[in-house]
Amino acid sequence: MKRYIGCDLGGTNLRAALVDIETGTVLFQQSVPTLAREGHDAVMQRMADLFLTMIKAAGLQTEDVGGIGIGVPGVLDLEKGETLFLPNLPGTWPHVPLRDVLYQATGLPVALLNDVRSITFGEWRFGAGQGVDTVAVLAIGTGIGGGLVINGQLHLGIGGTAGELGHMVIDFNGPRCGCGNYGCLEAFASGPAIAAMGMKAVAQGLTTKIGELCGYDLNAITPALIAEAALQGDEIAREIYQQVGFYLGVAASSLCASVSPRRIIVTGGVANAGRLLLDPMEKTMRERVHIMPVEQVEIVPGQLGDHAGVVGAACWAANRLG
Amino acid sequence: MKRYIGCDLGGTNLRAALVDIETGTVLFQQSVPTLAREGHDAVMQRMADLFLTMIKAAGLQTEDVGGIGIGVPGVLDLEKGETLFLPNLPGTWPHVPLRDVLYQATGLPVALLNDVRSITFGEWRFGAGQGVDTVAVLAIGTGIGGGLVINGQLHLGIGGTAGELGHMVIDFNGPRCGCGNYGCLEAFASGPAIAAMGMKAVAQGLTTKIGELCGYDLNAITPALIAEAALQGDEIAREIYQQVGFYLGVAASSLCASVSPRRIIVTGGVANAGRLLLDPMEKTMRERVHIMPVEQVEIVPGQLGDHAGVVGAACWAANRLG
Repeated sequence: MKRYIGCDLGGTNLRAALVDIETGTVLFQQSVPTLAREGHDAVMQRMADLFLTMIKAAGLQTEDVGGIGIGVPGVLDLEKGETLFLPNLPGTWPHVPLRDVLYQATGLPVALLNDVRSITFGEWRFGAGQGVDTVAVLAIGTGIGGGLVINGQLHLGIGGTAGELGHMVIDFNGPRCGCGNYGCLEAFASGPAIAAMGMKAVAQGLTTKIGELCGYDLNAITPALIAEAALQGDEIAREIYQQVGFYLGVAASSLCASVSPRRIIVTGGVANAGRLLLDPMEKTMRERVHIMPVEQVEIVPGQLGDHAGVVGAACWAANRLG
Repeated sequence: MKRYIGCDLGGTNLRAALVDIETGTVLFQQSVPTLAREGHDAVMQRMADLFLTMIKAAGLQTEDVGGIGIGVPGVLDLEKGETLFLPNLPGTWPHVPLRDVLYQATGLPVALLNDVRSITFGEWRFGAGQGVDTVAVLAIGTGIGGGLVINGQLHLGIGGTAGELGHMVIDFNGPRCGCGNYGCLEAFASGPAIAAMGMKAVAQGLTTKIGELCGYDLNAITPALIAEAALQGDEIAREIYQQVGFYLGVAASSLCASVSPRRIIVTGGVANAGRLLLDPMEKTMRERVHIMPVEQVEIVPGQLGDHAGVVGAACWAANRLG
């Protein structure tokens, strides 16, 4: 059995798993708070401790592990093994030699990858992307991350930056996006964008269950709460998801034209809304695309859930280091 | 020397060239009118005659030629070797077995490819895309075609339909595109879209040299004429190219986020406007993209001009059949 460690470096938690990379099975997992405000040196020390503790707890030696893959939320220099810009972590981690520090601290070879590219690789190898050679992933949460597998290869682009599908522009006159561009998909269809549509409806005084469900506290409005309202038959909430699905369908139509994927995988917390979100997305894509055989493009939910990132990071490490 | 025939099946002309596929040199070329209105059987017969005549005129035997690559303006089924939809040819050629008919008529193996993917492959192998592994091509003329080379491979997608970069949506509220979608790049920045901006300015009675240059005949307004006015210092004409460059820059920003190419090659008749078009395109892309190292992305004109398509088709045939 080939075992690798996959790690998800999150803003809140460090999650690590020991993965059988031949089957994609998570054999063992542990999680500790990231405590990112303590700075990158402290976080990297906690990561190394987590890996070594987990190996021990699993009854293994470091020699039993092939290497470590780390999914990192931001922009990397894959060649140098450095973090360049982690927007969600204090200090943003410019030029932190994450790969070499963890190699020195653990004695195990380390491969880095963007966190959503890790999810992409995991879903492609062992989840919703199995069996097809070209896949696009949209991971919808606080932001919209993405990834592309093209002709059976995770597409990295310059320094691993390809696949930021949430930052395709769908309206050049659109609102400012967190990335600095305007009218990106993320600016229309991320979790906060969806929540804001619910807040607006309640603030406007529209008749909607969203208000009751949040106890008229705008801070309590989330995509999940709006989805609940929609499932209870609330028209406003349903319209919000139809609008968001439309935005996603427009982006999917651009993906059909440019990448022509066999499958578009939608994952992340917001994707828990299921068909409420995917139905209007699919409808929009099928209505709008005529330039290629869109009937051969599937839109599917992710299959690996929270495991996608750690499984993908471990498989990526095996791919890179094996 | 390895010789292949490259052919460009155009709406007006059939252009064929004998190409040394080790250097990308055009050794010999011939062209005849397509006479597309005579129907696909007649056109295919003319193609076969052209190829055989050219081989003879070059003093060669069919055994001296490795095969034939054909760049086709439309949607293909690459596996079956059929045309599916050629919007610019009478009858649109549904399910015409172009590959097998020409093989039978010439005795030479045949590979099909979309015409702009042929240009893409030619520019990547021997033109403006040499030396980098990930390239996006935009060919701006009556429409906007495109192509992607990803990790050193021409990206085909479903049936060869990937790379239709002119049909990425840049404004979901935008005008109807010829493809049936709305707000595609092509609907904003194709040759006819540019000409229409000039027509509008003249029809509105704005003070612009475009009116003089076309003798106040709106039918005579072309992108080239507007470029001439701009080069003569006309403010309206310059603004038109700035606006078109902006649209292209928005699409380039989507390409940076999704594909992260090392080089974006702009070719086709409209690209003859040169820096007038590329400067605002580049400015927009550099201002808008922050999510990846955009300073490493080059925007460059094509280098092979009219030869790109036939060279690319010949190289593709060698790649597929060799």
